[in-house]
Amino acid sequence: MAALDATHDPARRSWVASANDPGGDFPIQNLPLAAFRRAGTREPLRGGVAIGTEVLDLGALNALQPFEGGAAQALAAAAQPTLNALMGEGAALRVALRAALSEALRTGGALEARVRALLVPQSAVEYGLPAEVGDYTDFYASIHHATAVGRLFRPDNPLLPNYKWLPIAYHGRASSLRVSGHGVERPLGQVLAPGAQRPQLIPTRRLDYELEVGVFIGRGNELGKPVPLAQAEQHVFGLCLLNDWSARDVQSWEYQPLGPFLAKNFLTTVSPWVVTLEALAPFRVPWIRPSEEPPPLAYLDEAGVRRAGAFDLELEVWLDTARMRASGAPPQRLSHANFRDSWWTVSQMVTHHTVNGCNLRPGDLLGSGTQSGPKPEEAGSLLELSAGGKRPLTLTGGESRTFLEDGDRVVFRAWCARAGFARIGFGELSGTVVPAVAPAAAPAPPQ
Amino acid sequence: MAALDATHDPARRSWVASANDPGGDFPIQNLPLAAFRRAGTREPLRGGVAIGTEVLDLGALNALQPFEGGAAQALAAAAQPTLNALMGEGAALRVALRAALSEALRTGGALEARVRALLVPQSAVEYGLPAEVGDYTDFYASIHHATAVGRLFRPDNPLLPNYKWLPIAYHGRASSLRVSGHGVERPLGQVLAPGAQRPQLIPTRRLDYELEVGVFIGRGNELGKPVPLAQAEQHVFGLCLLNDWSARDVQSWEYQPLGPFLAKNFLTTVSPWVVTLEALAPFRVPWIRPSEEPPPLAYLDEAGVRRAGAFDLELEVWLDTARMRASGAPPQRLSHANFRDSWWTVSQMVTHHTVNGCNLRPGDLLGSGTQSGPKPEEAGSLLELSAGGKRPLTLTGGESRTFLEDGDRVVFRAWCARAGFARIGFGELSGTVVPAVAPAAAPAPPQ
Repeated sequence: MAALDATHDPARRSWVASANDPGGDFPIQNLPLAAFRRAGTREPLRGGVAIGTEVLDLGALNALQPFEGGAAQALAAAAQPTLNALMGEGAALRVALRAALSEALRTGGALEARVRALLVPQSAVEYGLPAEVGDYTDFYASIHHATAVGRLFRPDNPLLPNYKWLPIAYHGRASSLRVSGHGVERPLGQVLAPGAQRPQLIPTRRLDYELEVGVFIGRGNELGKPVPLAQAEQHVFGLCLLNDWSARDVQSWEYQPLGPFLAKNFLTTVSPWVVTLEALAPFRVPWIRPSEEPPPLAYLDEAGVRRAGAFDLELEVWLDTARMRASGAPPQRLSHANFRDSWWTVSQMVTHHTVNGCNLRPGDLLGSGTQSGPKPEEAGSLLELSAGGKRPLTLTGGESRTFLEDGDRVVFRAWCARAGFARIGFGELSGTVVPAVAPAAAPAPPQ
Repeated sequence: MAALDATHDPARRSWVASANDPGGDFPIQNLPLAAFRRAGTREPLRGGVAIGTEVLDLGALNALQPFEGGAAQALAAAAQPTLNALMGEGAALRVALRAALSEALRTGGALEARVRALLVPQSAVEYGLPAEVGDYTDFYASIHHATAVGRLFRPDNPLLPNYKWLPIAYHGRASSLRVSGHGVERPLGQVLAPGAQRPQLIPTRRLDYELEVGVFIGRGNELGKPVPLAQAEQHVFGLCLLNDWSARDVQSWEYQPLGPFLAKNFLTTVSPWVVTLEALAPFRVPWIRPSEEPPPLAYLDEAGVRRAGAFDLELEVWLDTARMRASGAPPQRLSHANFRDSWWTVSQMVTHHTVNGCNLRPGDLLGSGTQSGPKPEEAGSLLELSAGGKRPLTLTGGESRTFLEDGDRVVFRAWCARAGFARIGFGELSGTVVPAVAPAAAPAPPQ
């Protein structure tokens, strides 16, 4: 767990006035990182750090060579088109960069005059993926989600016997990862209608979101070298929001016996800003395995995890329909959850993933799996909120939803808050559903 | 399907004498590609083409600028440390390079004097992965394998209802792909012993191989742009051998409901040589869906696939145990199969993979899934050959096997043969099992 230091001091203020808004996502205590360029340009992507409503251009800052030592080395890495190099440097250099950036941006800091010219309004930038993701792994770490979904697919056997013993996961698709704002084209897929004898290829009728936390890997591990639990967080860079867009009708037809494939790999989106473990340090909470439940095996159990392995991180899903926008009605919050309710922690995911020697590389992405809380209104997908499509949600304004309709805009938000500390926000992750493109005319089947 | 031309002429001979051995894998009609360097050096990897027992160094050849037009452009791409750039160029440039290389290597070709100095014996090189693999997808395209494995896991329901309708697949791990020869360290994993109440973390006791054909993607497709079946092979570069090493005891405990994960991602190996679609053109055979079976949906059915969508490709598994090596006994063939028996073709895999808009990138790798034929001795894994470990195989020399033991060396071979054409071989894919490394001492569990 990262130590608390002057960068966490809630009294520290920034000369960037918008950073001192107590309700904002990006105070000087946060300093999340993204890959960005000015919108509409062909500039190379480079690292940026959010401060209030601005982005500090780390490419331009690096050209000034304002730092020394580890912070200078980390800044050079952060000036690249992706954050992979910075991620691979590990925690010590990341901490040095954080301290130097906090000093540069704090009220009274000596660099204000030189740095002020390097700010770009967030409203005037576009983002790339934070990292080139070598492999994307999606976990299933919320027992509330696993139980609710299991009940829909297997009413008599909702939670499989392995669930409480190991962090279930599968490999996702890296090529179709995109950053927030990418359009969500309704995918085609094979679907077997209830009672039908043969499947059809149709645009999915059960398009869903999944509210997840994304985890970017920092330092990697070599093939054949498992990461012990006590060291797992040394391999984590930071967290973001992740939407594992899902086609439920495709999923239920295709997923046995090898798991989800085309139901998930048409698009996965992440928020542009990655909040580092250091920024999250004040919000670590105990990971609790209820005493009536079996303790995990030794390799997944460790005092530090029990003391502060979880994150007190609030998560929200908002829906903004085409009709809401047309009528000027505000978006509606569909659900909220907290990452602290996850059955497995980030460090347990890392250790389990590597226990067989599997190697993680800097910039690899883990999804937490849909984060649903214990209460019905804390469900992180429409599949759960609508009970598999059987109980439509009534929206303000009279609309209803079982699954997503064309024009629906889904927004995730997340933040940490604790008395005596600055609020740490994640910004937004959004995507709007666009209609399926009609399939190219199929050739006539052969005789 | 690639057209036949002078490069396929069985009468064409090479001035590289070993290429004219009729039993060899690499005649002048083959010309497979790899990434290589001289063994034990720190030279950069670069493309090479196999000819007889030699490798023609395409990096050195490119420095001579011997070709013009498309062949020159393709050669420059092939001189890179991986074949991704060449793969991304598509079929026309690959065909031009093949024609130019065949001309350079044929008896009587004008370039012999300049090219002879650029040969390196295969015995003196080491290989890299042919491509940097962005995403690796593993299919399940042999109905004989799916039925046999299904019978072990679900005796009353061996083949799930979706199998005959869609090419089942899951995403594999790209980071742990390695080229032939990499040691196979027996992985640790969670296993639930029969009748046990809690799982244990132990070295797998059911280590297995899976005999697969690997498919390297050539030209990619954009996100949101499905590849129609009639165009699918325009996105395929060539084929190799693939071993999807598997820990069966880990797999049976972890795989529900999201599919295999740690049971597979500790290592996947591929053969160094990629045989292009052009080299395989004489060996294309009809893809047959038996008339009593349902025809596929229209997007997976097309006259060209029915006419010549399959590959007549012989596949073999050989086992060489430590005791065989010590006693001077030869390796033993465990099974053989033919890729023509696959329920789904390569082009159907590509089209299904992209029907939802999922994007493939040059150098992406598809695995065919274990290729088992209709007869018991054609099973492509020990899981099948030993009936789930219940019927040990007796080896020559008196040893027996249910699953792999430390010291076992597994070798895959493959080739195409047809009267009137040169034999096209794939070379070997091999790996030797090494003992598990003891896990680091686990910290004492917290109170």
